[in-house]
Amino acid sequence: MQLLVDKIKTEGVYVGDGIIKVDALLNHQVDVGLMSIVGKAFAKAFATSGASLVLTAESSGIPPAFATAQALGVPLVYARKKQPLTMGERTYYAEAPSRTKGGVTPLIVSADYLTARDRVLLVDDFLASGRTAVALHEIIEQSGARLVGVGCVVEKVFEPGRKHLEEVFAGPIVTLAKIDLVDEGKNIRVFSD
Amino acid sequence: MQLLVDKIKTEGVYVGDGIIKVDALLNHQVDVGLMSIVGKAFAKAFATSGASLVLTAESSGIPPAFATAQALGVPLVYARKKQPLTMGERTYYAEAPSRTKGGVTPLIVSADYLTARDRVLLVDDFLASGRTAVALHEIIEQSGARLVGVGCVVEKVFEPGRKHLEEVFAGPIVTLAKIDLVDEGKNIRVFSD
Repeated sequence: MQLLVDKIKTEGVYVGDGIIKVDALLNHQVDVGLMSIVGKAFAKAFATSGASLVLTAESSGIPPAFATAQALGVPLVYARKKQPLTMGERTYYAEAPSRTKGGVTPLIVSADYLTARDRVLLVDDFLASGRTAVALHEIIEQSGARLVGVGCVVEKVFEPGRKHLEEVFAGPIVTLAKIDLVDEGKNIRVFSD
Repeated sequence: MQLLVDKIKTEGVYVGDGIIKVDALLNHQVDVGLMSIVGKAFAKAFATSGASLVLTAESSGIPPAFATAQALGVPLVYARKKQPLTMGERTYYAEAPSRTKGGVTPLIVSADYLTARDRVLLVDDFLASGRTAVALHEIIEQSGARLVGVGCVVEKVFEPGRKHLEEVFAGPIVTLAKIDLVDEGKNIRVFSD
């Protein structure tokens, strides 16, 4: 998606060590118009997937996942990182290491909202290490639901996320902007297919 | 909003102690169509506010705040509860006690996305103790921005949230469904204005 590539080029900041700050678009301030276009692009890419829900992880996955669920006309479910008192007792649980925050992040989904009948479209902001996506895939497996596609707004192609995900999932993985390192990691290149 | 009242009546679960579980609509699974209607209702209620952005706190505030920002055509900014490595150094900070999760929740907003020129519409899922809204108001004050309105999807009228908020903010506070305790707290009543 050229619009997204252009926005990342103008508003993204490369802070080094493979970390790109897109807080102006995605992770803190949200460009809602851009997210609506992102949601429509995923809905188009997965139009024939028969997805019954969109799954993501709180918090930065919620805006693109919400917009995608909106465009597909299906519910959104977001994995919680901490079990609230109101959550039911039957839950699915997996762990994902988080680099930008440090430590391990638990991911919890109530069994009330993910069932063996569901066809799940996984949407997230970044595909980097792939650990969040792999952990969400684990949760989907636990529930007996079926993962039908993965859409991530930004892919860091210099990280093993796609490879790790392909080890557990043979279906379509769609990313709208790709980022690669150049100049021995001192700069980045932003592009799309 | 009668639709919201009806949905809370059919899909909400009162778990006692004044805690209502609306995980099926708002806090875990998100009814995206309902949230779009909620967003349009807030956009209409605050059409003349001149809001330049919608502010909320991660995570459960994001869906209604996203939909409102979408309907108003302005950016969304969500306060983070943990400072990511990618966040800039200049931040605003306040603390809000969280009952359903226990402990104190820090709220952090980068100074890059909230400036003295902003007119802020605060949107959240619940108005209950009012502590999140009061903490976000504190952050808005720190930035020099102006709070122009508060929209919360559900108000617990048996809690002091509105009162606490009115002590610091004289503008409009709009809530779309109200919940009160009946039968000495054994049941709830859901209604709208």
